[in-house]
Amino acid sequence: MKGQKYAAAKAAEIRLVKRLPEYWRVTVDHPPINIFVPEMLPQVGEIITAIGTDEQVKVVVFDSAVEGFFLIHLDFLANLDDFAHLSPGPTGLHPWPEMLARLSRAPVVSIALIRGRATGMGSELALACDMRFASREKAILSQFEVGTGLVPGGGPMARLSRLMGRGRALEVILSADDIPGDLAERYGYVNRSLPDVDLDGFVDTLATRIAFFDKQTIMDVKRLVDVASLPPDIEVQSGWDACVASMARPATQQRIKALIEQGFSKPGDAEDRLGDFVGRHDTKSGD
Amino acid sequence: MKGQKYAAAKAAEIRLVKRLPEYWRVTVDHPPINIFVPEMLPQVGEIITAIGTDEQVKVVVFDSAVEGFFLIHLDFLANLDDFAHLSPGPTGLHPWPEMLARLSRAPVVSIALIRGRATGMGSELALACDMRFASREKAILSQFEVGTGLVPGGGPMARLSRLMGRGRALEVILSADDIPGDLAERYGYVNRSLPDVDLDGFVDTLATRIAFFDKQTIMDVKRLVDVASLPPDIEVQSGWDACVASMARPATQQRIKALIEQGFSKPGDAEDRLGDFVGRHDTKSGD
Amino acid sequence: MKGQKYAAAKAAEIRLVKRLPEYWRVTVDHPPINIFVPEMLPQVGEIITAIGTDEQVKVVVFDSAVEGFFLIHLDFLANLDDFAHLSPGPTGLHPWPEMLARLSRAPVVSIALIRGRATGMGSELALACDMRFASREKAILSQFEVGTGLVPGGGPMARLSRLMGRGRALEVILSADDIPGDLAERYGYVNRSLPDVDLDGFVDTLATRIAFFDKQTIMDVKRLVDVASLPPDIEVQSGWDACVASMARPATQQRIKALIEQGFSKPGDAEDRLGDFVGRHDTKSGD
Repeated sequence: MKGQKYAAAKAAEIRLVKRLPEYWRVTVDHPPINIFVPEMLPQVGEIITAIGTDEQVKVVVFDSAVEGFFLIHLDFLANLDDFAHLSPGPTGLHPWPEMLARLSRAPVVSIALIRGRATGMGSELALACDMRFASREKAILSQFEVGTGLVPGGGPMARLSRLMGRGRALEVILSADDIPGDLAERYGYVNRSLPDVDLDGFVDTLATRIAFFDKQTIMDVKRLVDVASLPPDIEVQSGWDACVASMARPATQQRIKALIEQGFSKPGDAEDRLGDFVGRHDTKSGD
Repeated sequence: MKGQKYAAAKAAEIRLVKRLPEYWRVTVDHPPINIFVPEMLPQVGEIITAIGTDEQVKVVVFDSAVEGFFLIHLDFLANLDDFAHLSPGPTGLHPWPEMLARLSRAPVVSIALIRGRATGMGSELALACDMRFASREKAILSQFEVGTGLVPGGGPMARLSRLMGRGRALEVILSADDIPGDLAERYGYVNRSLPDVDLDGFVDTLATRIAFFDKQTIMDVKRLVDVASLPPDIEVQSGWDACVASMARPATQQRIKALIEQGFSKPGDAEDRLGDFVGRHDTKSGD
Repeated sequence: MKGQKYAAAKAAEIRLVKRLPEYWRVTVDHPPINIFVPEMLPQVGEIITAIGTDEQVKVVVFDSAVEGFFLIHLDFLANLDDFAHLSPGPTGLHPWPEMLARLSRAPVVSIALIRGRATGMGSELALACDMRFASREKAILSQFEVGTGLVPGGGPMARLSRLMGRGRALEVILSADDIPGDLAERYGYVNRSLPDVDLDGFVDTLATRIAFFDKQTIMDVKRLVDVASLPPDIEVQSGWDACVASMARPATQQRIKALIEQGFSKPGDAEDRLGDFVGRHDTKSGD
């Protein structure tokens, strides 16, 4: 770890702050790179349960306390196998896509405020939110997984194809490359990219505005928009199954191993320029 | 009413002019703010029936004769209850969403030329048209309803989610805020926003062009595009039902009452800056 | 033919070059205007069969060797009737839409590199590809057919409505007009338009990148994106049937005859400015 650039590592924390009873903030605070570690999963699950059941909350904003990173992928130095095979919930979905489905269906408006890198699970969380606003200068979204041989597991095939159409969804997922804020807006990956200096104010104003609207009305609008726009669970489950199958393939294991040797899942160049790294031919196996 | 700024009120009129047998113009002329009054409903219904049954017409342009307003919402000083409970037509839909569905399905190309405010029913009429072109400087679109506690009734949940994807549709409807021309284009709310000086010429050229094409061919293309893009009636009906239910809620009645006290549904600041007004916390009930 | 401007006519050729076993290029080379002649059909069919069955190929780029033209419409001086009534393949689709459906479903990433005019079948081929990148200065896309009285037959009603929403799809098809690169990007007709000088490098870099990714992973991603974004064959077939029916109408035959008299299907002004020509009222029959 480069001492100057990154804050000290500390326990992963997903922090919930109630700015108003109607307006919550959820902040990912796991320096130095906001990597997703398995112990975050129950924290996220509890928060999404609270969002879905609290009677007062109407709007929740997801953001990051870590410079340069919104939320990134699973820590590949953790036990991936354990994570991949967690018991499904009552819907039959693995806990991760199941939490995302619950967030999308919650009777609460969810907004991702994206500054820094949102890749893998970070991109998937943002896509499960109702709206996404990105820093023009500092946001980078991506689904890097195909570059490692993995099929993404948290629903981007289902969600991106509905947001931006087939051509752009295939490009985002199959290029596995970094998508900066303005391109993300042109593609519909985010609602808008805003000058970094304006982003916090814009999102806070929008969230506060919605916090004073009527909860039943918000619920009804979401329910009706979702008829035509939310993917069915079975489609997300099929993507998860393809993800788990891809993880077991030797070619994928080799690619991941080569990437880890170059610094993947650790602070440094590989994560700062992940799009470049997964596109380097020397990280590929001999296929 | 501010005498200088607004023309004198007069009887509501939806004016039909046949520029050619194949090319009609429908102009909303209800100064000073083109508010939708219940007596307009049969006028609109008759025109849409004519559009759907005339053998020669191929293209119809909807515009406004009133400076600053394309067409806005229902007059909330009228009897809303009567309007909400009009008898449904043969499709089971309330007359308003039913007219919009007929317009979309008519074997005729419908184009909204949007200059000034298009909110509520004005936005819904534009969304039911086949194409929308907006003045870059003077068009403002919105679905303001959620700011009053209402669920919009004329289909924007169904139509906007298909035009711009889930994230932007939820933002437009749940923010209840003004969307100027250029943002409307970036979001896909309109086909394009054009410099105001070019708008009339552009739309007239396009309409004239289409007026000389083959009617059967136009019908077939519309029918085939609609397979994947037009919402089913049942989805629009479900939105209408949610609208009527929301109207009856005491919280909505209180919000509407507070807004009317500030000038809602009358010429003046509240309608000129409706997005701001519905977002003011002092118009909210104590929920 | 204007000798200076156009290269000499030669036999139609669709050229397949394997840059790598994993990365193929397919180049349309039928000067002077890359018009689609019926003898190209089996050539395209064979190449798409090879793309769908080769075990190594992962990405294929379609481009043109002819200045000013990517690929345009069927040669209307050929026997249209014969072409329209070719025997359907095992899916029940006419060979042309059937090839396009196979291309979209192939376990290979297809990319259209569009420089020059892509209209009619050229636009349809581009739309059947997984991604489209266009020259900002030199690409022009269109579905000109409605200007001749024809319903387009290769699926644009089904594909454009899913890519860009109902309003813009109806405009593109019913205006029958030229869509330059930047507008094509704003509408989602292409993934991006790029400065002409950057286009080849961008596409080559992207294709090379994907060529080193895992084929099974690519296949799985495509399959999952397609669930929500690829039109069913029956919808494309319905469009084809409408196309064949429109071809038989006397009004269409008259429009085509008038256009041919003005130079349609031959090198020259009519093809260089096809959008203008199909919009001229003097090419219309007396309807």
